[in-house]
Amino acid sequence: MTAAAAPQTHPPADALAAVLDALRPLLGDRLTTSAAVREQHGRDESYHDPMPPDAVAFAESTEEVAAIVRACAEHRVPVIPFGTGTSLEGHVAALKGGLCLDVSRMTEIVAVRPEDMDCTVQAGVTRTQLNEHLRDTGLFFPIAPGADASIGGMAATRASGTNAVRYGTMREAVLALTVVTADGRIVRTARRARKSAAGYDLTRLFIGSEGTLGVITEVTLRLHGIPECILSAVCPFPSLKAAVDTVIETIQTGVPIARIELLDPNQMRAVNAYSGTDYAIAPTLFLEFHGTEAFAREQVGMVEAIAGEHGAKGFAWADTLEERTKLWAARHTAYYAGLALKPGAKGFSSDVCVPISRLAACLEETEADCAASPVTTAIVGHVGDGNFHVLFIVDPDDPEEIAAARALNDRIVERALAMEGTCTGEHGVGYGKMAFLEAEHGPDGLALMRAVKQALDPHGIMNPGKIVAP
Amino acid sequence: MTAAAAPQTHPPADALAAVLDALRPLLGDRLTTSAAVREQHGRDESYHDPMPPDAVAFAESTEEVAAIVRACAEHRVPVIPFGTGTSLEGHVAALKGGLCLDVSRMTEIVAVRPEDMDCTVQAGVTRTQLNEHLRDTGLFFPIAPGADASIGGMAATRASGTNAVRYGTMREAVLALTVVTADGRIVRTARRARKSAAGYDLTRLFIGSEGTLGVITEVTLRLHGIPECILSAVCPFPSLKAAVDTVIETIQTGVPIARIELLDPNQMRAVNAYSGTDYAIAPTLFLEFHGTEAFAREQVGMVEAIAGEHGAKGFAWADTLEERTKLWAARHTAYYAGLALKPGAKGFSSDVCVPISRLAACLEETEADCAASPVTTAIVGHVGDGNFHVLFIVDPDDPEEIAAARALNDRIVERALAMEGTCTGEHGVGYGKMAFLEAEHGPDGLALMRAVKQALDPHGIMNPGKIVAP
Repeated sequence: MTAAAAPQTHPPADALAAVLDALRPLLGDRLTTSAAVREQHGRDESYHDPMPPDAVAFAESTEEVAAIVRACAEHRVPVIPFGTGTSLEGHVAALKGGLCLDVSRMTEIVAVRPEDMDCTVQAGVTRTQLNEHLRDTGLFFPIAPGADASIGGMAATRASGTNAVRYGTMREAVLALTVVTADGRIVRTARRARKSAAGYDLTRLFIGSEGTLGVITEVTLRLHGIPECILSAVCPFPSLKAAVDTVIETIQTGVPIARIELLDPNQMRAVNAYSGTDYAIAPTLFLEFHGTEAFAREQVGMVEAIAGEHGAKGFAWADTLEERTKLWAARHTAYYAGLALKPGAKGFSSDVCVPISRLAACLEETEADCAASPVTTAIVGHVGDGNFHVLFIVDPDDPEEIAAARALNDRIVERALAMEGTCTGEHGVGYGKMAFLEAEHGPDGLALMRAVKQALDPHGIMNPGKIVAP
Repeated sequence: MTAAAAPQTHPPADALAAVLDALRPLLGDRLTTSAAVREQHGRDESYHDPMPPDAVAFAESTEEVAAIVRACAEHRVPVIPFGTGTSLEGHVAALKGGLCLDVSRMTEIVAVRPEDMDCTVQAGVTRTQLNEHLRDTGLFFPIAPGADASIGGMAATRASGTNAVRYGTMREAVLALTVVTADGRIVRTARRARKSAAGYDLTRLFIGSEGTLGVITEVTLRLHGIPECILSAVCPFPSLKAAVDTVIETIQTGVPIARIELLDPNQMRAVNAYSGTDYAIAPTLFLEFHGTEAFAREQVGMVEAIAGEHGAKGFAWADTLEERTKLWAARHTAYYAGLALKPGAKGFSSDVCVPISRLAACLEETEADCAASPVTTAIVGHVGDGNFHVLFIVDPDDPEEIAAARALNDRIVERALAMEGTCTGEHGVGYGKMAFLEAEHGPDGLALMRAVKQALDPHGIMNPGKIVAP
C-alpha cells in the first residue's frame, strides 16, 4: 500500500549538539540550523509531508563529507544526503531527524576525457551543467529525467528518463563512484575500465541505494558522441492503443530509437497550457532519432511505416535546434505542467515498468481506471522501456482525494507486479514505496537487502527509514 | 602477486558424512564420491593445481539445489557450484574440500518470449545450446566467451567476450536471477522489467560473485534480434600499434561495431596450425558489423577508411555463413590453439582491461615485455573494450617457467592498474587474482566486499577461499 509517513522522531539533543560542536570549526556558516534552510531541505517535489532535518551541512569536498559522516557516526545521528531535492518518494524527508548533508556546492567537473568518452564530476553537478560544460567536446551525457537533478542524486536513485531506451539508465552510465561509507571511509568503487570482473559490483550496489548505504561524492560517467544527425518529431494517434502498439512494434523491430515518449490527452492539454504549445489534444508520441544522416533517415522510414499502419496522423518535425529544444522542454516539464492543471495542487506519480509485451494491456486498463476515478490524472511515459507515470494531481489538504489517488496507485502497482513488472522504473523507493518493495521482492528478497544494509550501515544512520530500514 | 594455492583442507569427516547421508535419499546415484568424478570437478581449464571436492552432487532443479545447500549449511560443509568447468582462475578448486554442486544437468529452457526479446533458462544451459534453441525465433544471445560455458557460470563470473563492445557483458545481459542463498532460501532477484529502481541491485550483486554468495539456478536474459545484415572480415596490419590505433579511432568515432578483436602474430600462427586456416602471420583484426544492409555497409566504409590510414593491407571478407562461422570458430578457439603450440602445456592468461586511450601504450609495452621473456606467449584481445589476454603457455612441471610467467603477469597487471584499468576484464578473481584484487580496490574497498560476503554467507560455506574470503 502507498505509505503515509510515521510521526517524525529525532536523535537525542546532546548527540546532535555534539555533532554540531564537532563540525562547526570545519564548516563555519556552512553548518546551519536555520528554520528556513531546514524546511527547504525536508521536502521533495512530491506530495509527501515535509520533514525538516535538525541541521543542514553544506559540504564542498569528499573529505568534508567523510568528516561529517564520521562525526554523525560517532554520535549515532542520522545523515540524509541531499542533491537538488527533486526526488519524488520522500527520499530527503528526515523521518528520524538528524543532519542533512547537502552536496549541491560540490560542482567541480573533475575531469573530462574525450579520448575515453568519460568524465568524473562531483556529486552536486547537475545534468544540464554537465552538458553545458561538454558542449565543445562533441560529447554529451544522455540520461535525462525531467528535473535538472544532480548527478550524485541520479546515481543514488538509479535515475533514467527519456533517452534510456537507447542509452540505458544510470546503472549503465556510471563507470565508478567515490563513496563515503557509513563509518566515514572514502572508497572508490571501480577503475575506469569499460568492463571488469574484479569482485563484487560495488558500483551497482551503491547505484539506487538512495543514500542508505553511504554518500556518493564523485561519479565517473560514460559519455556519448553527439550524433551527426538528430531528428525529432511529434505524432498524434487516434487512440492510446494505437500509439502504444506503434511503440511495441518499433522496439520489437530493433530500431535503436533514441527517444519514444507517450503523453495522454490530459497531459497534452497540460503541456500546451504550460509551455505555450498548440499540439493536438490526442494520445501523442514524442520521438527522436540519432545516427548518421543516412541511418537516422532509415530509422525514421521504418517508424513512419509502423505508425502509419496504426493510423498515425503524420509526424510534425522539429527542424531547427531551437524547435527541438522547445519540443523536449515541453516534454521534460510535463510533471510541472501537470501540477499547473490545478492551482495549489501537489503531485504524486506512479512509476511502474512492465515487459513491453504487456504494455498495451497495462496502459489500457490503467486508462480505464483513471477515467473511473475522481482524481485528476495525466499519463506520460518512457514507453520504449515499458515505463510510464500516472501523475495524480491532488489537493494536499484534501485527505479524501489523496486516499482516492493512493487507492488508484495501489491498483496500478498491483497490476504491474502481476505482469512481471516493477513498482518503480526510475523514481526509487524512498519511504513512499516500501510496502510495494516487499510485494515485489518477497520476504526473502527483502531479507537479502536488509542483510546488505545491516552489513554496510550497522548503526542505521544512513538515510534511515528508506528502502528496507525501519 | 599471482597467487599459488595454499594446501587443500577438508571439513570434518563426520560433517561430510552427515551431508551425504542427508542427501542420498534425494539424489541417489546423482551424489557420488567416485575419484574420477571428483578429480574432473576439481580442475578448470587453467594451470591451477586441481583440488578435487570430497563429493559431487548433480542437481536437476532449483529446489534440489536449495535442499543441497541447506544440508551443507547445517553441517558447515563447503559448497562449490560447477557449470562446465571452463573458468580460468581456480574458481572450481575445492580449496577447503566440501561438496561440488554440479548444475550441468539443469538444461531446461524455461521460457522464450520473442515479443519481449527475453528468455529464462536453467543455469546449466550453455550459450551454444541456447542459440541453437533460438534459431527459429529471429533472436540471439550475443555474449560469446571462447568456451561453450554455462549461462549460470557466465553470470557468476560476469563473463563477456567478442560481442561485448556492441552488446555489453553479462552485467547488461541479465534481467533477473533465481539464486539459492547460503542458508538455502530461493530468491528471485528482480522482475522482467527492462529497468527498475526498486531497492538494492541484487541481480548485479550476484553477477560476478563466483558462487561465493549463493548458487545461481536460473537466469533471465535479454535477447537481440539477429541483424538483417552481418559482415565479417579479417584484416592484417603492419604493426601492433597500427592495429590498435585503428581500434581506438573506431571506438572514438562511435561506430557501433559488433566485434573488433586483435590477435598478435604468435596467436595467428597458433590459429592457423589449430584451425587449418592460412591467415597472414601479422597483427590482425577480426571484425564484424551488424545492422540493416545500408547501415552495416556504412559502418564498413568508416572503418575501412580508418584502417587504410593506418596501413591496413585490406579486408578479407567472409562472404557466406559457413565462412563466417569458420572465421569466428578460429577466433573462439584461440585459447586452445595457443596451448597446442606446445604439446603437454597448460595455459594461464592475463585479462587486464584499460581505458581505450591507454590501450596502445599498454599493448606496446606488454609486447616488449613478452619479447624479453623466456615464456611462450600469444596475445588476443577484445580490444574494443580495452581488454586483452596474454596467454602464457607453460610446462606445468617446470616451476621456473611458471615463475617467469607469473612475474610477467604481475608486471602486466601492475601496468594496467597504473593506467586506471582492472586486473580482470572478464575472467574473474577465483583464488588466482585475490592479491591483485586488493591492489585494485584498496583495503577499504575490500572491507566493503568482505562485509557483503559476511552478511550473505556468515558461515563461509559458499565457494570458500575465492574473491575476498580466506
